Amino acid sequence: MADAEASAELPREARPDRGTLQVLRDMASRLRIHSIRATCSTSSGHPTSCSSSAEIMSVLFFYIMRYKQSDPENPDNDRFVLAKRLSFVDVATGWVGQGLGVACGMAYTGKYFDRASYRVFCLMSDGESSEGSVWEAMAFASYYGLDNLVAIFDVNRLGHGGALPAEHCIDIYQRRCEAFGWNTYVVDGRDVEALCRVFWQASQVKHKPTAVVAKTFKGRGTPSIEDAESWHGKPMPRERADAIIKLIESQIETSRSLDPQLPIEDSPEVNITDVRMSFPPDYRVGDKIATRRACGLALAKLGYANDRVIVLDGDTKYSTFSEIFNKEYPERFIECFMAEQNMVSVALGCASRGRTIAFASTFAAFLTRAFDQIRIGGLFESNINIIGSHCGVSVGENGASQMALEDIAMFRTIPKCTIFYPTDAVSTEHAVSLAANTKGMCFIRTTRAETMVIYTPQERFEIGQAKVLRHCVSDKVTVIGAGITVYEALAAADELLKQDIFIRVIDLFTIKPLDVTTIISSARATEGRIITVEDHYPQGGIGEAVCAAVSMDPDIQVHSLAVSGVLQSGKSEELLDMYGISARHIIVAVKCMLLN
Amino acid sequence: MADAEASAELPREARPDRGTLQVLRDMASRLRIHSIRATCSTSSGHPTSCSSSAEIMSVLFFYIMRYKQSDPENPDNDRFVLAKRLSFVDVATGWVGQGLGVACGMAYTGKYFDRASYRVFCLMSDGESSEGSVWEAMAFASYYGLDNLVAIFDVNRLGHGGALPAEHCIDIYQRRCEAFGWNTYVVDGRDVEALCRVFWQASQVKHKPTAVVAKTFKGRGTPSIEDAESWHGKPMPRERADAIIKLIESQIETSRSLDPQLPIEDSPEVNITDVRMSFPPDYRVGDKIATRRACGLALAKLGYANDRVIVLDGDTKYSTFSEIFNKEYPERFIECFMAEQNMVSVALGCASRGRTIAFASTFAAFLTRAFDQIRIGGLFESNINIIGSHCGVSVGENGASQMALEDIAMFRTIPKCTIFYPTDAVSTEHAVSLAANTKGMCFIRTTRAETMVIYTPQERFEIGQAKVLRHCVSDKVTVIGAGITVYEALAAADELLKQDIFIRVIDLFTIKPLDVTTIISSARATEGRIITVEDHYPQGGIGEAVCAAVSMDPDIQVHSLAVSGVLQSGKSEELLDMYGISARHIIVAVKCMLLN
Repeated sequence: MADAEASAELPREARPDRGTLQVLRDMASRLRIHSIRATCSTSSGHPTSCSSSAEIMSVLFFYIMRYKQSDPENPDNDRFVLAKRLSFVDVATGWVGQGLGVACGMAYTGKYFDRASYRVFCLMSDGESSEGSVWEAMAFASYYGLDNLVAIFDVNRLGHGGALPAEHCIDIYQRRCEAFGWNTYVVDGRDVEALCRVFWQASQVKHKPTAVVAKTFKGRGTPSIEDAESWHGKPMPRERADAIIKLIESQIETSRSLDPQLPIEDSPEVNITDVRMSFPPDYRVGDKIATRRACGLALAKLGYANDRVIVLDGDTKYSTFSEIFNKEYPERFIECFMAEQNMVSVALGCASRGRTIAFASTFAAFLTRAFDQIRIGGLFESNINIIGSHCGVSVGENGASQMALEDIAMFRTIPKCTIFYPTDAVSTEHAVSLAANTKGMCFIRTTRAETMVIYTPQERFEIGQAKVLRHCVSDKVTVIGAGITVYEALAAADELLKQDIFIRVIDLFTIKPLDVTTIISSARATEGRIITVEDHYPQGGIGEAVCAAVSMDPDIQVHSLAVSGVLQSGKSEELLDMYGISARHIIVAVKCMLLN
Repeated sequence: MADAEASAELPREARPDRGTLQVLRDMASRLRIHSIRATCSTSSGHPTSCSSSAEIMSVLFFYIMRYKQSDPENPDNDRFVLAKRLSFVDVATGWVGQGLGVACGMAYTGKYFDRASYRVFCLMSDGESSEGSVWEAMAFASYYGLDNLVAIFDVNRLGHGGALPAEHCIDIYQRRCEAFGWNTYVVDGRDVEALCRVFWQASQVKHKPTAVVAKTFKGRGTPSIEDAESWHGKPMPRERADAIIKLIESQIETSRSLDPQLPIEDSPEVNITDVRMSFPPDYRVGDKIATRRACGLALAKLGYANDRVIVLDGDTKYSTFSEIFNKEYPERFIECFMAEQNMVSVALGCASRGRTIAFASTFAAFLTRAFDQIRIGGLFESNINIIGSHCGVSVGENGASQMALEDIAMFRTIPKCTIFYPTDAVSTEHAVSLAANTKGMCFIRTTRAETMVIYTPQERFEIGQAKVLRHCVSDKVTVIGAGITVYEALAAADELLKQDIFIRVIDLFTIKPLDVTTIISSARATEGRIITVEDHYPQGGIGEAVCAAVSMDPDIQVHSLAVSGVLQSGKSEELLDMYGISARHIIVAVKCMLLN
């Protein structure tokens, strides 16, 4: 369809009048000036990247998007996700290559959970489209038919280090977007009229997300900087800035402004606070059940308690047991397939503005894929909950590449992240319930092997509160475990008891925050002796957390048992023993410590 | 071109005779039997996934690939990278979604460094093509015209959790491969004749990598299991295995075997051991230079010393200063653009079989993107070297999302990884030189800010050997720093000296291995008092490493200064002070410790 012909058929809203178009151009010019001034004043930033997308921003914010300027967090507002670095909008940046996944989560929430009218716009640079996470999100959005989502590729040809692979070959972007199932428009990113048209057209397309591939120019509007290499991330020299600003100002024709359209108010009210399970855990002490399965059951129970609980998984639902939730609430389960980065980003998007309580689960080892997404989620204090199953060598036959032995270290670095490492089914259910009600990111580490229920349904659990499972006045050593190693510690205690050696056994429940009070008081009660035992590498794990917690106490000694050496497959119990974290090794460590 | 017509024009090598074709089919049958037997005997594995690719494996290993069976590591051999899980080849698995990037590194090395005839084949499952890292590799391979690379998509429709998004829509895979610039063939993966043809055709294509999209069936050849859901990763029940094996055996017509073709021996001899810089560091004490820049200079110097030194970067070369190497040796520099996962995988591929000494550099914060690739590289004891610049809050104005504060924790979890954290330009040059000559993975952490040269050109550096920069018999506290915090510790020492308080100052140089001997002897010499100070989060960092190292010594106390709290942008020195790791905070900590 020829452009002119197409335009004739378009309704008025897709065809702003000449006056409005000039205002949009003038707004773009003002954004350029603002970005030059802002980056000059801080001597840092990306004014040239800002310039390339000024028209896109102007059209989106002053003509296309519906939102309440006075209430930016309003649930009915259209969403705008900025993945590229801009200096004239007050939005957290740093989501390079991650914005589209977050936008997918928002759009999925809008379409399937809120069933509301708001749309989601995501602006990306061409450079970041080389991040694989973008293509995970592209596949996700088309698979789920997110027709309320628009991704804008700001193709300005230049990255940090010069020309990008596809340069201004717009057709490469077009073919890739189309191959990934997107309705795709190619547009001159400087043409506000064309931008208005394609954003309107996008709103008419059903069952497909829309990609707008915009050909733009970095440093647009600034002579000798426009489209020139080596200006990435550099503010203009002050002496040139004034002349450039004058030049841009001379192109401004109006002083008019435009008010954005108000949103359609059709988002449902949502309450995601104070979510309580309807009945206590239904397990008996002595039952054998894997915490990963108990976690799946707990999610389903939580899903019954609150209809905004959602679960995401990455093609592992039969192993993580998130399938149990899926079976009960398929409409609140998001299969993200083997794309862990995108799964975490989608969860971040779903949880934004408090629209859902999101739990994302996969093998804990696979979460290393999404460390950057987790890191950024932590920086922005997102409320997502992440479940990592199959932790440690206790996974047994699955093999080394699937053993998570660095996940505790990874999540411990996330500011304000709560790390649950439940030992039995009862504590797992409490971990899920607490996570749902806890601000900030939560991580729940679950075990593949079946473990015995050791807590009664009445037991109360709190974040940062460890359980002392064995204690008496004659205790000589405090043994600290979590998850599978608690059973090894209990077995060691039983065995040592026969030899009249008494040990105190602690189940940490949360690794972060750590129950330092209980640890130190127990250590003092056991003549300063602590042994930690964990199914994790020593680095960044429970042992180091405990060492750091007692490091200023000169009377406390810590001996740490953790996994090291070349990893092999084998039976769960055999591996615990082979890697030095079984009851037998605890017994040896206790005796050694008592000899010194 | 019709198939028959095409075949008629093909040379004999692309058209095996009927007898050979039957042998290839029989080989596939034997592979199926072998996989059923192997997984039955261990009660673990993926026999159904193996079955879908049996013909592909048979054709590759017995007709297409050139290699010496007796010498699998021969540099002239064709390479085979297995990304999907198979049980009948003795290849490390777990590279799900990572194999293609590794294969890209091998193919790049073959084409550009070795300029040799060997080809690289990578077999992937359809499920893992949802990993974004696959599309990073797809973009990389076409951009660099890797015509010696063949990727085989084994499209068997089923993932772990059931049907995959694209199911058997082969055209979706075809369009995506083509959009990413690959020469693409669609083929029936059961048809050994067609497979022989397309693999031969691939060898004739110039300047483009070839994708073979093979439609296959999971569990092929086993009635009621073939193409059935829920058989992923499950061995057959023993009672059925025998009958199935009988059935497959009945289809075997020959007992002939085929010998693979021998490789073309045209790889150059390579010596990557004992690489020495040709002259000592060319810095004077008191010079100011950022370690990131010194690192770039050291790489260029190393590149002069050995022509198999290569450098990779992810669109950050002007900031990491790998540009200095690029300028000197552009033919040994690989720009990987913004795709950190793929950059690490490519480096793993380049370094495999000892063909190159590979250094991959980007901002340390962005390396979190590649944690899974780094983890797997560590598991396989790869010799790659990774450089992370812009560490800590000292990056200043770049902003929170670009501050690496978890990279030490991340790399410390990698078994046998050596972590260098050089303080000045001289130690940086030594770190680069040592990394080049060290087995296993190495990580070099560099600083954005300029720092003063404190070591003379003659200073000797060893892995695991810290430098004691200040010491006297009256020292009361040992202060341990690394990188930027060493200068803070030295400034604190100067200030305290004026107040007649003597402290010992240690520059760790390597964080892993840690110089426990020096740490403990220094602590003992300073009445058991240690203060650690690091531009990193507390978790998994230097403080915890030191705490763990001295945890069994009851007379040593450790007080750790590290970065916590909500991150902001600002001037480097201001941020060091704001986050509690400046000289001022060290002084307070020293005085506090002396009061106790």
